[in-house]
Amino acid sequence: MRNFCLTLCYDGTRYRGWQRQGNTGATIQGKVEAVLSRALAQPVETAASGRTDAGVHAREQVVSFRGHTELSCEEILQALRDYLPEDIGATALAEAPPRFHARLSCREKTYLYRVWNSPAPCVFQRRYVCRWPEPLDTAAMEAAGARLCGKHDFAAFCTAAGKKRSTVRTLREIRILRQGEELRLFFTGDGFLYNMVRILAGTLLEVGAGRLAPEDMPDILAGRDRKRAGPTLPAQGLCLWQVRYGSEREMEADGPLFF
Amino acid sequence: MRNFCLTLCYDGTRYRGWQRQGNTGATIQGKVEAVLSRALAQPVETAASGRTDAGVHAREQVVSFRGHTELSCEEILQALRDYLPEDIGATALAEAPPRFHARLSCREKTYLYRVWNSPAPCVFQRRYVCRWPEPLDTAAMEAAGARLCGKHDFAAFCTAAGKKRSTVRTLREIRILRQGEELRLFFTGDGFLYNMVRILAGTLLEVGAGRLAPEDMPDILAGRDRKRAGPTLPAQGLCLWQVRYGSEREMEADGPLFF
Repeated sequence: MRNFCLTLCYDGTRYRGWQRQGNTGATIQGKVEAVLSRALAQPVETAASGRTDAGVHAREQVVSFRGHTELSCEEILQALRDYLPEDIGATALAEAPPRFHARLSCREKTYLYRVWNSPAPCVFQRRYVCRWPEPLDTAAMEAAGARLCGKHDFAAFCTAAGKKRSTVRTLREIRILRQGEELRLFFTGDGFLYNMVRILAGTLLEVGAGRLAPEDMPDILAGRDRKRAGPTLPAQGLCLWQVRYGSEREMEADGPLFF
Repeated sequence: MRNFCLTLCYDGTRYRGWQRQGNTGATIQGKVEAVLSRALAQPVETAASGRTDAGVHAREQVVSFRGHTELSCEEILQALRDYLPEDIGATALAEAPPRFHARLSCREKTYLYRVWNSPAPCVFQRRYVCRWPEPLDTAAMEAAGARLCGKHDFAAFCTAAGKKRSTVRTLREIRILRQGEELRLFFTGDGFLYNMVRILAGTLLEVGAGRLAPEDMPDILAGRDRKRAGPTLPAQGLCLWQVRYGSEREMEADGPLFF
């Protein structure tokens, strides 16, 4: 049984997210497993670094799967490139150590939330940004971001937090980058709760607009009340940017272009 | 009667090109005139710097139109932003001198042809590039481009050249830029024949692949035979990049982002 590590990128617009869901709609996992099962002539099940929700994109998603096959990695990669739809791209495929598992071995992920912060048109990137034309105070957003980083209970930044599972996560870094009309928010951490990045981004935009203050962040965290944080921003602005592993898998130097 | 100069960008994927065509399909001109006619409460006819064909994009298209109205430019621009579909963007609107005409006053245009020159996936830019995974010798392409520049009869680089109209044009510059997996071909000239940029790009790719030589260019030009030039590349890789005018209209410092 060989173990493989596949790197994907995708435009999530048309999909109900990563995770296979019976026959209730197109999912990225479903598309990838169909091509792999055909290429390897056996049922193939994949594990991703994490799910992405309906409409969310990935510049770098990492997926592991096992299979009995004599095909080379090049041949399997070619099959993926030949048969995956145009909005799912197979970037790289390598043989992985037996214990490598895309989700369990994952150490850290970075998500990007893209905000088109201008009344000007955004024609060519329209599927990958959230429009927010209101002027934004990025210094205030950075100050709020600094207060959200660290190991905290993020229950306030999570949709439908289960009562039992821990909502403690470590958010290592929030980076805010202005590029012309666009504001890019990068979130790096060891794990993210359901909708956590979209709520963090929505909260930072409320700070940028002056409706919340950086000083409110510790209270919002401590209150563990979803209603006090900002709105859940739309899926289309969110993109899984990078996935990091330890020595089990060298980090890719560069993912595919995503502008 | 006021005269206006409108700058647009658009994703041409869904359209049968710029030019209005009765009721035979969605055109960009049709969409723009519908919004302007409604905003100005009178029939508005537009003139563009040039037509773009079905599936061709524009980062900067310039359009002029006349109308009796007391609306400010800001108000008209806002109407365009509110009512144009997402894949057509109104970048700027200004009042123009009475004699300004987007087509007749145009001095020079630059088109970009985008080639995704890699077997790697191109998910996020897939609608705006032509895939050509074969290795390309860009030095040979540059040498061929240099021989195509200048004032020539471009009949060989034109689909269905009319027998009567002149096929002489001045191609001022061809620039070839490699950006990662992408090759960008910029063509600047005073005017372009039907399909001329797509055939020029196809000819340069044949040179890059070694099936034509830079030295063949003068013969192909002299022969005036379409069959000797390279293929007409697909519309989706083509984009009207920039339109230049004289003193009648200041050049925009920057068009909208187009990556």
